[in-house]
Amino acid sequence: MAKKVAVLAVNPVNGFGLFQYLEGFFENGISYKTFAVADNKEIKANSGITLFVDDVIANLKGHEDEYDALVFGCGDAIPQYGENAGKSYNQDMLAVIKTFADKGKLLIGHCAAGMMFDSVEAINGKKIAVHPLAKPAIKNGVATDEKFEIDGNIYTAQTENTIWMMMPEVLKALK
Amino acid sequence: MAKKVAVLAVNPVNGFGLFQYLEGFFENGISYKTFAVADNKEIKANSGITLFVDDVIANLKGHEDEYDALVFGCGDAIPQYGENAGKSYNQDMLAVIKTFADKGKLLIGHCAAGMMFDSVEAINGKKIAVHPLAKPAIKNGVATDEKFEIDGNIYTAQTENTIWMMMPEVLKALK
Repeated sequence: MAKKVAVLAVNPVNGFGLFQYLEGFFENGISYKTFAVADNKEIKANSGITLFVDDVIANLKGHEDEYDALVFGCGDAIPQYGENAGKSYNQDMLAVIKTFADKGKLLIGHCAAGMMFDSVEAINGKKIAVHPLAKPAIKNGVATDEKFEIDGNIYTAQTENTIWMMMPEVLKALK
Repeated sequence: MAKKVAVLAVNPVNGFGLFQYLEGFFENGISYKTFAVADNKEIKANSGITLFVDDVIANLKGHEDEYDALVFGCGDAIPQYGENAGKSYNQDMLAVIKTFADKGKLLIGHCAAGMMFDSVEAINGKKIAVHPLAKPAIKNGVATDEKFEIDGNIYTAQTENTIWMMMPEVLKALK
C-alpha cells in the first residue's frame, strides 16, 4: 500500500523544491499532507507567491504515527533560522523530525534538510547530501559532496536542483 | 537591463513547472508578474495547493508592451482545454500570446505551451519541443522529439521534467 507523507514547508519556502515532491507524489498516487512551519497556513514562496498549505506544524505533533515519511521543504527561511530558532513553530518542527527519526520513518529533504535532521541526531553516522554552505555545520552525520545520498531511512539532495536525481528512489520507497 | 516577464499560470497549474521559472527568475534578479488564466487570482496547483498569483489574464491585455517575454505555465487545466476554449480567460490568453508573438517578444513554455503558441500562429516554421501527446496537434510549427528547443524567440521544453535543461538559456536571454 502506498505510504502517507507529511510535507513540511518553511516560510518562505523554495517552490521549485516543494512542488517537485508534491507533483511527483500527486502523479504517483502517494498521499500527502502539507504543513507550514509557521503559525499560519498562509505562507510565501521565495519568489513571493502566496501559498495556502493544509495545516500548521503544531497540528502534526502527536500525529506522527499517521505518516510513514517526512519531507523537509527548505527555503529562504533557513538563512534566518538562527534568529527564529526559539519560535514555537521551529521547536515543533524539531520535535516532529525527532519523533519521525526515533520511529525509524523515512526522512527526505534537500538543501539544509540534513542540518535540521542532524540537529535532532537523526543522521548519526549516516551519509547525507547537503548545501555546501551548511556542510561545516553537520556534526553527527557524514556530509558528502554528492548530488544526493540515500543511507537507510535518510534521503537527502544537495539542493533543489538535484532533487530530480533522487526522486525515482523516493517514489520507489513510498509506493 | 534585465527584462520583465509575464508568467501565465493555468488552473490547475503544474507547480513543479511554474516554480522552476519563478524561483529561477527570483534568484537571478529578473522581474516578473504572474497572471492566472482564470477569472480569479486564486488558483490550484495540480497537487491541490492553493496559490494566489499577482493578477488575472484579463488585466494583461493591452499591457503587453510592459513585458519582454511571456511564460506559459502548463498544468492539468490543459487536458480539459477543449471544453473551456470559449471561456473569456482562455480567449484572453490566446489574444495575449498572439500580441507577444506579433511583437516578436520571447515566448517560453513547456508541455502543451507549443500547442498554444501554434494555435495563434506564433511558431510558423519554427522548431518546438512539446509533450508527446500534443505533438500530433501541431500544425504550423515543427514539433521535434527533443527535450527542449530554442528557435529564434521560441523557447520550449518537452515537459516540466526537462525545463532545467533549457533554463540556463532562458536566463541568459532574460538578463
